Amino acid sequence: MRILLIHGPNLNMLGQRQPEIYGRVSMKKINELCRQKAEELGCELVIMQSNHEGFIIDFLQENFGNCDGIIINPGALTHYGLALRDALESMRVPIVEVHLSNVYAREEWRHKSVIAPIVLGQITGFGYRGYTAALQLLYDHLLDR
Amino acid sequence: MRILLIHGPNLNMLGQRQPEIYGRVSMKKINELCRQKAEELGCELVIMQSNHEGFIIDFLQENFGNCDGIIINPGALTHYGLALRDALESMRVPIVEVHLSNVYAREEWRHKSVIAPIVLGQITGFGYRGYTAALQLLYDHLLDR
Amino acid sequence: MRILLIHGPNLNMLGQRQPEIYGRVSMKKINELCRQKAEELGCELVIMQSNHEGFIIDFLQENFGNCDGIIINPGALTHYGLALRDALESMRVPIVEVHLSNVYAREEWRHKSVIAPIVLGQITGFGYRGYTAALQLLYDHLLDR
Amino acid sequence: MRILLIHGPNLNMLGQRQPEIYGRVSMKKINELCRQKAEELGCELVIMQSNHEGFIIDFLQENFGNCDGIIINPGALTHYGLALRDALESMRVPIVEVHLSNVYAREEWRHKSVIAPIVLGQITGFGYRGYTAALQLLYDHLLDR
Amino acid sequence: MRILLIHGPNLNMLGQRQPEIYGRVSMKKINELCRQKAEELGCELVIMQSNHEGFIIDFLQENFGNCDGIIINPGALTHYGLALRDALESMRVPIVEVHLSNVYAREEWRHKSVIAPIVLGQITGFGYRGYTAALQLLYDHLLDR
Amino acid sequence: MRILLIHGPNLNMLGQRQPEIYGRVSMKKINELCRQKAEELGCELVIMQSNHEGFIIDFLQENFGNCDGIIINPGALTHYGLALRDALESMRVPIVEVHLSNVYAREEWRHKSVIAPIVLGQITGFGYRGYTAALQLLYDHLLDR
Amino acid sequence: MRILLIHGPNLNMLGQRQPEIYGRVSMKKINELCRQKAEELGCELVIMQSNHEGFIIDFLQENFGNCDGIIINPGALTHYGLALRDALESMRVPIVEVHLSNVYAREEWRHKSVIAPIVLGQITGFGYRGYTAALQLLYDHLLDR
Amino acid sequence: MRILLIHGPNLNMLGQRQPEIYGRVSMKKINELCRQKAEELGCELVIMQSNHEGFIIDFLQENFGNCDGIIINPGALTHYGLALRDALESMRVPIVEVHLSNVYAREEWRHKSVIAPIVLGQITGFGYRGYTAALQLLYDHLLDR
Amino acid sequence: MRILLIHGPNLNMLGQRQPEIYGRVSMKKINELCRQKAEELGCELVIMQSNHEGFIIDFLQENFGNCDGIIINPGALTHYGLALRDALESMRVPIVEVHLSNVYAREEWRHKSVIAPIVLGQITGFGYRGYTAALQLLYDHLLDR
Amino acid sequence: MRILLIHGPNLNMLGQRQPEIYGRVSMKKINELCRQKAEELGCELVIMQSNHEGFIIDFLQENFGNCDGIIINPGALTHYGLALRDALESMRVPIVEVHLSNVYAREEWRHKSVIAPIVLGQITGFGYRGYTAALQLLYDHLLDR
Amino acid sequence: MRILLIHGPNLNMLGQRQPEIYGRVSMKKINELCRQKAEELGCELVIMQSNHEGFIIDFLQENFGNCDGIIINPGALTHYGLALRDALESMRVPIVEVHLSNVYAREEWRHKSVIAPIVLGQITGFGYRGYTAALQLLYDHLLDR
Amino acid sequence: MRILLIHGPNLNMLGQRQPEIYGRVSMKKINELCRQKAEELGCELVIMQSNHEGFIIDFLQENFGNCDGIIINPGALTHYGLALRDALESMRVPIVEVHLSNVYAREEWRHKSVIAPIVLGQITGFGYRGYTAALQLLYDHLLDR
Repeated sequence: MRILLIHGPNLNMLGQRQPEIYGRVSMKKINELCRQKAEELGCELVIMQSNHEGFIIDFLQENFGNCDGIIINPGALTHYGLALRDALESMRVPIVEVHLSNVYAREEWRHKSVIAPIVLGQITGFGYRGYTAALQLLYDHLLDR
Repeated sequence: MRILLIHGPNLNMLGQRQPEIYGRVSMKKINELCRQKAEELGCELVIMQSNHEGFIIDFLQENFGNCDGIIINPGALTHYGLALRDALESMRVPIVEVHLSNVYAREEWRHKSVIAPIVLGQITGFGYRGYTAALQLLYDHLLDR
Repeated sequence: MRILLIHGPNLNMLGQRQPEIYGRVSMKKINELCRQKAEELGCELVIMQSNHEGFIIDFLQENFGNCDGIIINPGALTHYGLALRDALESMRVPIVEVHLSNVYAREEWRHKSVIAPIVLGQITGFGYRGYTAALQLLYDHLLDR
Repeated sequence: MRILLIHGPNLNMLGQRQPEIYGRVSMKKINELCRQKAEELGCELVIMQSNHEGFIIDFLQENFGNCDGIIINPGALTHYGLALRDALESMRVPIVEVHLSNVYAREEWRHKSVIAPIVLGQITGFGYRGYTAALQLLYDHLLDR
Repeated sequence: MRILLIHGPNLNMLGQRQPEIYGRVSMKKINELCRQKAEELGCELVIMQSNHEGFIIDFLQENFGNCDGIIINPGALTHYGLALRDALESMRVPIVEVHLSNVYAREEWRHKSVIAPIVLGQITGFGYRGYTAALQLLYDHLLDR
Repeated sequence: MRILLIHGPNLNMLGQRQPEIYGRVSMKKINELCRQKAEELGCELVIMQSNHEGFIIDFLQENFGNCDGIIINPGALTHYGLALRDALESMRVPIVEVHLSNVYAREEWRHKSVIAPIVLGQITGFGYRGYTAALQLLYDHLLDR
Repeated sequence: MRILLIHGPNLNMLGQRQPEIYGRVSMKKINELCRQKAEELGCELVIMQSNHEGFIIDFLQENFGNCDGIIINPGALTHYGLALRDALESMRVPIVEVHLSNVYAREEWRHKSVIAPIVLGQITGFGYRGYTAALQLLYDHLLDR
Repeated sequence: MRILLIHGPNLNMLGQRQPEIYGRVSMKKINELCRQKAEELGCELVIMQSNHEGFIIDFLQENFGNCDGIIINPGALTHYGLALRDALESMRVPIVEVHLSNVYAREEWRHKSVIAPIVLGQITGFGYRGYTAALQLLYDHLLDR
Repeated sequence: MRILLIHGPNLNMLGQRQPEIYGRVSMKKINELCRQKAEELGCELVIMQSNHEGFIIDFLQENFGNCDGIIINPGALTHYGLALRDALESMRVPIVEVHLSNVYAREEWRHKSVIAPIVLGQITGFGYRGYTAALQLLYDHLLDR
Repeated sequence: MRILLIHGPNLNMLGQRQPEIYGRVSMKKINELCRQKAEELGCELVIMQSNHEGFIIDFLQENFGNCDGIIINPGALTHYGLALRDALESMRVPIVEVHLSNVYAREEWRHKSVIAPIVLGQITGFGYRGYTAALQLLYDHLLDR
Repeated sequence: MRILLIHGPNLNMLGQRQPEIYGRVSMKKINELCRQKAEELGCELVIMQSNHEGFIIDFLQENFGNCDGIIINPGALTHYGLALRDALESMRVPIVEVHLSNVYAREEWRHKSVIAPIVLGQITGFGYRGYTAALQLLYDHLLDR
Repeated sequence: MRILLIHGPNLNMLGQRQPEIYGRVSMKKINELCRQKAEELGCELVIMQSNHEGFIIDFLQENFGNCDGIIINPGALTHYGLALRDALESMRVPIVEVHLSNVYAREEWRHKSVIAPIVLGQITGFGYRGYTAALQLLYDHLLDR
């Protein structure tokens, strides 16, 4: 089982950037926790981060036909990254959308996700713990099939 | 640690009602899984279901000052139950909102939750597994404080 | 053939309440006319009225798998009773929506029914006669199948 | 008692056109059923169909002051035929609007009728049976006055 | 002179619930102040509270034809309780709508009252004092007639 | 100087149709008054009425290059007759839009004219007198050029 | 017969201000033409101009009960002068709204008049000639009563 | 304690202007009642009326730092007087907004107050009695502080 | 292979009407070019033009079951001709929508086509050449099937 | 070179009014700084402030044809002062719009300026320094021509 | 004659990605067909694809002043790529927008193209054939000039 | 003092691209003027341009914690670059937004900036001079702190 973990724009700044909203845990730490979890579950985890919508799409295409599921926090691309949406949709694998903060308690424009209609599920507001929970839930879902 | 698990209208019909959307697991089964999980975590779980917005509010008020967190799937009240929202908000404890199906892939009116702005976090689209994940994440969050 | 006839909030006040809009025929009289019609058609009619969205849902669930069709005037729940809609939809039988007055000639908010997208048909504006017509049309429709 | 039965654009294609939506009964058949019903009720029925909004208005004007009620399925003119609406309104007789399919379960633009605010009542979703029911209800209503 | 005083959902929690918004005076205290005022004015006051829209409608119907005026704080039902609105409207007596906080200085959705178009008047933002002022103004209005 | 006077749908019913809105003067009478006025001004007046948008367009095309101005009351086509608008616009002569009633004091949908952006001017609310005023103003305007 | 002619903000600049839109005729010239017309008709004309909404309201109140009709070009107050609207409405005499240019062919915000719903009629797009036409039409209307 | 009582545009016409909406009590009478009430309460009342938004703002600025509270019926400025709003907000004292009629039962544009978000409270629909009630409630509120 | 070529309202005026927008090529010339192309492709082309929505619908019905594809420039009916849309949809053959000018660079209301959701494809902005391209593309598409 | 500096409603209260938003520098101080700057640049500066839209328009008209540029902070008139907009537009000189605070970070209604479409440029959010920068930029722009 | 052919995000996956929507022909195949067509026409074709809005803009700028026309399928950038739009617009050559599927029959957000207002023409819904048709039409258009 | 000057997509084409809108001064020239100004003020200026939202975000992150202020013209990213907005916001230094043209006098979609709510101030419409003014104003602001 091969799973992609994708961090969208600005998520590499976690821990430094507005910790009152996004928490004090760094992306590096989240990746460690996820790798550890993946090892426990016995699945392969491929991680990438980019501030470029284009590079995320390139990365998805390179893994086309070669992954079983995707965990993604698209950052602000959540709200306008329609090309990313098209790329994700054409992957034809289950996708989990993760948000660190409760986006529904913030600015109006953060309430609308252009990604949400094509994902399996969404985990919002639980900070860094949302990622490992996503991994577990995606894993369980994939086993079911 | 005392946690309320609340099922809104029609969720007692789970397993029977539109299983192609909501899955084949019954509410009774979900409650069992959650009770088991609660036992593992060592916390008390109080469960209720009602088709009446009013009874859910009554129940919340009865537990005012006597619970540490709430897990709720408000069913269709998600989209218009503003009195429920007020009741939840005044509880002053962390709340987790759970939806079985990916509401963002369904009718437009299911995309808007009047509850979401006041919750800690939201788990959407993972079927029955969303509940135990919610319990774990809520528990972890409460430990942190 | 077993058919449910459901009167939503305030319809028990028919004849007394704003007769210039809703007419001078009482709910009791409508029920009599419908029972008589049902007898003619040879079908069982189960009637209930409630001012509580929750009780109407409870009643529907109690009749789950045990009725062939539903006639409902949801009163003002027509416009926001999404939990009622979910309950009706999960009954998996043909539903007829009846309104006494022509709602399209009244306030803007009365033009939108959240129930309408899931019903077989709608009869609007014919006063008490709409109910017996609904019964006949539902009966004819059920025979066809 | 003299009643007009008007079929709007494309309704002459009934039975041939998209039977999965509009049913397999032809307009000719509907007219027969309505003529039979009218005979039973002892009222005169004048029937016309046109794909031209203008001809329907001409027809209405020719019958001005010489009819007691109107049954109309305006077809797609329902949604934009404001000149038809003005013509109908100036007839000063009760009007019944009939739709074969449940328009509220179809495209958004089919939910709005510009005719509805000026009619006595609306019957929607019962296929060909809606016409005879309309005739009966209109007849009963006219007797009342 | 017989006046109904109705408290909608969550108002029984006054004093405990978000006192920074709703103040520190309990519903019991408000009732006492109103009873005292009613005694001064020489009118009968019947008080009820419910978290159930349905029970408030039941209560209104039981008092149909047997009350001269109504004071109501519908809580969050203000914003979607259309069945409550219909029930209030059919009472055919003057109604005063009271809100403790200035709803126009809070969330957008609190600005719209579905009750307001059918009331005599509205008192908003004066905390517990709004109730006795409402009683006085309603009393004066009733004397005028 | 050759001027077209065009009456849209239902205007042939003037005097009979809703006189409380449109007045008691017939179209025939208006035509007489306009012919008289045209004679005084020394200009040719060509008059037509149709309930068909298509025939009005046909008529305009037949007069293409052979008229100096147009007076039109498009009836309800005012609000949706975009093909009529295109036909009028391509005539390349000054157009005056006349309405008998004050459309801005009536239903919302009557406030919007799709014709207005391409006319010289609009006269609204003066009943039959609007037509002769239109003729005078159009005549004066044409003389100026 | 005593008629008020009111020019709103900026209309005193006519002839100087954007002549490509408003024409080259000054307000003084328009007033002369109107006075001449009034003399012909044998009615008294009281003229005022102000750039202040407040002064126009003051002027109206001073003439309350002492005028038979009003001609007004409210300038840009047309689009937001709700206090002017209230003042005009309370005058209880017929009002004619005049615009020099065709406002429906200009910016979106110029299409909406807050004054229009309370006037007798509107004349738009005929430049300075709209004023004398307004006077004639108002005079004819007043004679009718 | 020094309180300003401000009447916006057209309120000097009270009693004369549309009494079926605004009642038959004149502004002079309301001022008398308020002065009497103020005397009873032992507070100073400064009263002004203007049809000019600008003069009301001038008046407020002259009283800056020299008043304890404001009662204002802004008339139609309620709906667009943003400069008035800014002036009121910068006064930094509690403000009570009064409306004679129930604005929520009238035209759509009267439902929105640009003043409401910055006031202490609002009293709507009680006619002249709303002013003395406002004075009492403002007085009580000021005593509390 | 039998293909219908339909020109909507005002397209018979091509070449004369606003050539700066629609070009200088007449409808007659376009028809010639299309007939020539059809001959090359070896398919039958039936051409009609009408300013009447009704006649275009009549024409479509007469060709029901007797054509393989349709090329249509609906003129302004593009934006409101819902009856035409219904007629086209029920033909059950591939349809190509052609526009001479780039409608997306013109007035807002020209951006929305009610026909577009039911066509095979759309060619916009290429003037008279759009028609022969449409014929070729429709022909190629039909061969594929 | 003669430049007008105009302060709209409430700006005379600068320094006193909400200094956390508008800063602690008074209008008098801003005028001094601007006069000093104007002297440096060798241009004439005419300054006015008014709380009355009407007086600002009067002032503009008095300077018609006698100024080379305008700097204006319209205060709240920014958002609804359409008569002011018309007056400014007809001046036919370059206009600079200045706001002390960043209006785009405040209430929704402050984001929309009805003045902005007709100005040369806008300077927002720099407090009192925005004025001297505006003077410099306007001066440089005028030199260019 | 030098023409750019640009493929936006995800179009390199053609043939593999959702063939039920986008068809089974690969981008490589489309490029071959277009190169062949270009050769026939005797024009130079420069082809690029990128998932990065930025790279497409870089590419356009590199070809500034050195191309005669552009064919572009912007993929999902169609709906939000405003920087791409600006880049295209500044190229000052005719642009043809191509879409493989009929975007007007898909999700609402696919109906709106931010590119369309600046192109020569649009070809939608004809699959791979749309590209060669675009090349031909662009070529013909360029010859005309 | 270290300040970033960022040019968004297409701004490298300044002087060549649509000079009637953006002026004839090149980006190179603007950079020179800014460098000169920075030298005068004694502050360090770091300049970059990119057509890639991603590269601008990368650049910002590289300068995190190492700059005192930012001047940015985001080009078309102004209107949808939410990831850029997030990156800018997390820099925690004052930002000045510059636009060459008056965006409020252009297309509707250019009126809305997603960046504006998080900046210190905005300078719009002054062409190349806006940049040096921005530098001065930002410098003055930073000195104040």
